[in-house]
Formats: sequence, structure tokens, C-alpha cells
Amino acid sequence: MKNIITVGGGTGSYTVLSGLKNIPDISISALVSMADDGGSTGVLRDELGVLPPGDVRQCLVALSDHSNIVRELMNYRFTNGGLKGHNFGNIFLSALEKVTGNFAEGVEIASEILKIRGKVIPITHDSAKLSVLLSNGKLIEGEDKIQSDAAIQTYGLKKIFYKKDVFLNKYAQNALLHADIIILGPGNYYCSLLPNLIVKGFKEIIKKSRAKIIFPVSLTNKLEHTTNWKVSDYVKDIEKYLGKPVDFILVNTEMPSRSQIEYYRDHYKLKEGDGMLVKDDLEDKRVIRESLLSHAFFAQVKGDKLKDTRSFIRHDSEKLANCIKKIIEK
Amino acid sequence: MKNIITVGGGTGSYTVLSGLKNIPDISISALVSMADDGGSTGVLRDELGVLPPGDVRQCLVALSDHSNIVRELMNYRFTNGGLKGHNFGNIFLSALEKVTGNFAEGVEIASEILKIRGKVIPITHDSAKLSVLLSNGKLIEGEDKIQSDAAIQTYGLKKIFYKKDVFLNKYAQNALLHADIIILGPGNYYCSLLPNLIVKGFKEIIKKSRAKIIFPVSLTNKLEHTTNWKVSDYVKDIEKYLGKPVDFILVNTEMPSRSQIEYYRDHYKLKEGDGMLVKDDLEDKRVIRESLLSHAFFAQVKGDKLKDTRSFIRHDSEKLANCIKKIIEK
Repeated sequence: MKNIITVGGGTGSYTVLSGLKNIPDISISALVSMADDGGSTGVLRDELGVLPPGDVRQCLVALSDHSNIVRELMNYRFTNGGLKGHNFGNIFLSALEKVTGNFAEGVEIASEILKIRGKVIPITHDSAKLSVLLSNGKLIEGEDKIQSDAAIQTYGLKKIFYKKDVFLNKYAQNALLHADIIILGPGNYYCSLLPNLIVKGFKEIIKKSRAKIIFPVSLTNKLEHTTNWKVSDYVKDIEKYLGKPVDFILVNTEMPSRSQIEYYRDHYKLKEGDGMLVKDDLEDKRVIRESLLSHAFFAQVKGDKLKDTRSFIRHDSEKLANCIKKIIEK
Repeated sequence: MKNIITVGGGTGSYTVLSGLKNIPDISISALVSMADDGGSTGVLRDELGVLPPGDVRQCLVALSDHSNIVRELMNYRFTNGGLKGHNFGNIFLSALEKVTGNFAEGVEIASEILKIRGKVIPITHDSAKLSVLLSNGKLIEGEDKIQSDAAIQTYGLKKIFYKKDVFLNKYAQNALLHADIIILGPGNYYCSLLPNLIVKGFKEIIKKSRAKIIFPVSLTNKLEHTTNWKVSDYVKDIEKYLGKPVDFILVNTEMPSRSQIEYYRDHYKLKEGDGMLVKDDLEDKRVIRESLLSHAFFAQVKGDKLKDTRSFIRHDSEKLANCIKKIIEK
């Protein structure tokens, strides 16, 4: 049985895990960033002093074999009163952390209750504050603030780091050491993917690992983070943080529809020529080209404070999983 | 297999169900009052428009075969931030009601998740506002207010009723119709027990039922509700609401310890001679006399707004269940 590891955060990990779940005879571990500090997660971190539950919840839901109603429950957001804006699953994980006194143990019990296929592992057990230092000297602290405010491309990135060092935990270490396949993303590059790679100890373990590394490149660029980036830019940049080359680069070949593009542009208030779509410019034997684009309609969740930052040109779970399956079977 | 039904509310039902759970080869259904409107439950009712989760949660926890940590989770109360004072299990049931659109279905899914032995059935699916009309014309609305403010004995009780009629639901009807044993309480007389008996349809079903009715009489009286009541007062009064005689009257024979009494008095700021303990005055063949008193220490739950109204002279789960078991086996 092959050990498959995903590395990422919220929606992107949800997508890839939802697809991987249906591949027989593999063991899945999802390593999850602990940098999230926005929305319901941010409020719970601030008020209760817990680790961020949001991304872990999405991975748990993706891997859950429980009924649809229970998976729906985990994503339910309250729309009234003092609980307004809070996501039930986040409250669930926070309460479990409080009761067990330990986020990792809480996640384990949640996994049992939700009958998940695989493991969800926080990348670190330390309280993580993602920070970005721009070349003009400006420091931006907090993942949520980096998402919305960091003009990385205007001023240049000097450094992405944690305010206080955070360390790879032993479960994540162990999973990485025994991995046959490591999938980096998909997901927001600076805010979901890199936050895992810059955890102390990650690079060292990757160096030792004999796992094949798969990199599904983003479909879209993020304004002021990766505008105008091409496939080669992503590969070059991630290999810098990784300290070694990736083995497979998954590139989508299907153009999003006009309406998808317009909806996306309207949503993010982008202009024509904003370098939104990631251009495929890489001549490299490691590239696997396939249609990986989803045509599913993503309904906005009522009461979801984060709705305005969610992506609508997305990978398709099944297509992505099928592409990865072929690599696994190689 | 005998069908055993409990009728009640919070702590009292928790006590009897925790004991009954260990009796083999019986089927347990807990009918639960929907009158609660205090504490975390009251806030959720007001803000989310849900049915009251608190009493149902206690019954679910009593019957759950899940790990201790999951049962602890269900009783966990948040102590900080916007969730302060809220009980996790109450939030869980409220979210399930929202997701399913139906409290009963929510309770069913919660029962599955919590692996409960038996069934927990809300007595009614209607929104219930318990009301008390005193003989001086004063009307007190809401279970929480009745608990704290209704000077029933000073002014006399004219009527206990629901502001708007509420009806026995079909699941409760069905459970009662197939019952072999019905256990009334233990529990707060006006606020946990009677709220079930005055639901429209209850009396009619009880009339038809061939079940043996067991009435574990309270150990203590509630100031201004039942002060100075003796066993005979409880029996006479409940039979009025029931419309028929009970079959077994369970009376505790063990005097609470001096320290239990003092703790209880201090807690409720009672004076000597307040008629706190229920005196056994009934010469009746239906009476079963046994030691039913608990010596367990009930820790106050941190952040629990209700802690000041909880009783500390309580029935012992195991003793009560053993006493009931003998009746079941008759």
C-alpha cells in the first residue's frame, strides 16, 4: 500500500483529498498549514487561544466516510446571534482541543467521530503567525492580512517566515519519512502552500525523503502575490523553498470558459490583462499536461465571511485524482 | 425485551438513564421536556429559534456508549469570548437542527454519532413556553423565570400550562403506547416533570397505556414550589395531572449526611426548618422503600451559569436502577 501525503491548507487540499479518497489501496495523510488566522478560525484563535481549526476541518470533511448530513454539519455556519459567522466544525475542533488539552489529540478524536479515511495532521503544534517582510522594509503579520494587504510584487519579497519559529511535529515528520508520494497543493501559494514548507524541519525531512514529489500548479495567479506568474515561475520558486526538484508538474490544459473568467474577474475586481491565468511556458519532461479544470458550480456559503476570497476557477477533484493515480501506479 | 420509558428533563433523567443503561435486555426511550429556556439553551432558543437542546443533550450523554472524552465534549462549556457560557453539546444539537431543518431528525443523527443505547425523544416538536398563573392573578412566563420567581406556595397555583398549546409528537406517542414501564422523573417537579404531563395528548395516551408507572419521589423540596411537601403530597398531586394512579412509589430511606444537608442549605440559602427534605408519610402498599441516596460529589462545572440551581442531594444512578430492575423483573 502506497503512502500518499498531501501538503496544503483549505479549499485546495479539500479538492485533492476528495478525489484521492476514492483511490483504492492507498494510505492518505493530509499535512495541514497552521497559519490561518482569518474569519471564524481567527476569532476562535484570538478568543480561545486554540490552534486554527478551519483548514483541518476541510481536510476532515474531504476524507470523512460519514453521511452527507454530518459532512454538511461540519461546514455549517451560524447566521444569527452570538454564534453568527462561526462554523460548526471549527467550534467542534476548538472544543475538542479544550477538552483533550491538545489539538493533535482533538483532531484524532474528530477523525474517529467523522470516520475519516486516512489521517489529518497539523504541520506544527506551535502557534504560528505567518509574516512577510517586503523589500521596502514593510512587515505584514498574520496570514489573513498577508492575503489582503501584502503588495509582494510591487515592493518585492524579502522574506516569508514565522514571527516565532514553529517546528515540524513528530507525526508530520513520520508521515513524510514514510511517504511514497508527496503532493504539494494545490492552494494559495503564499498563504496555504509555503506556510508548510517554511516550518522548521520540513526542508531537512524532504531532503532525506525518497518520495516522488508532485506539484499541481495553480490555475490562477493571485493579484499582487503572483500576478503574471507562469508555470516555470511557480516551479522555480517552490524548488527554492523545497531545496530539491519536484518530480512531476501537473499542468491544466483546458481553458476556463468565458463565463468562468468573467465571474472570477468580477469577483476579484480584476481588469483585462491582469495576468490572472497561469500560462504554460515550461518545456520539461516532468510536466504532465491534462485537463484538470472543474466545471462544478461553487455555491457561496451564506454567512461565510470568507466567501469573497474563494476561488471559482478550480481544479476538478476527480480529474486531479485520476492524473495522480497514474503516477502512483507507475 | 421490555420497553422502558423515562419521562423528565435534565439532571434527574441523566441520573436514572445512566443507571438503566447497564440493565441488559431492555429497550430504553427517554421522553424529554421541551420547556427549558434558561442558560445556554435559552440563548440558543432566542438567537437561533431552535428547540431547547440542554435536556436532550443530558439524556444523550447518559445513554452514549462513546468514549468518556466524547461524553465530556458534549458537556464542555466555553469560558471565553463570544462562545462563553455556551455548552458544546447544545451548539451541536442546534447546528444539527439547522442543517436537517428538524429537531427530531437532528436528535436522531446525534444519537447515531454518539452511539446511544436507546432513544431520546422530545416530548413535543412545538415551541413550548411554560407558564404559571398564580391565584393572585400574577402570570409568570418561561421555565427559567418560574424556577427563580414563581412564589407558587405563597399565592397558590391556579394553573400550569403552555402559553400556546403544544402537542405530544408521534414518536413520543408511539413510545408510550408500547411501554411496559413508565418512570416519572426524578426531577424538578414543576419545571422538569409536569411540563411533560401537561403536553396535549399525554394524559389520553397514559389512559390507554397498560404500562406500570413508577414514581421515584423527589428527595428534596423546592422552596416556594413544594416546601414542606411529603411523599403523599407528591403522589396526590401527580395523580391529578396523570389522571390515574401510579403503580410504584420509590421512597428513599437514607438520611442525607449532615454535611450534605449543610452544603445544600448554604447553597440555596435555606434556613433550618425550611421543609427541605421530603418526609415519608405514606402508608401504602405501592411504596418501595430503599436507600436511593447518592454519596457522589458533584463538581461544579466551570463557566456553568446554572451551577447555582443544581441539586446536591441526589438519587444514586445505580441504586435507583437496581430498584427499578427488580420491578422490571417482577
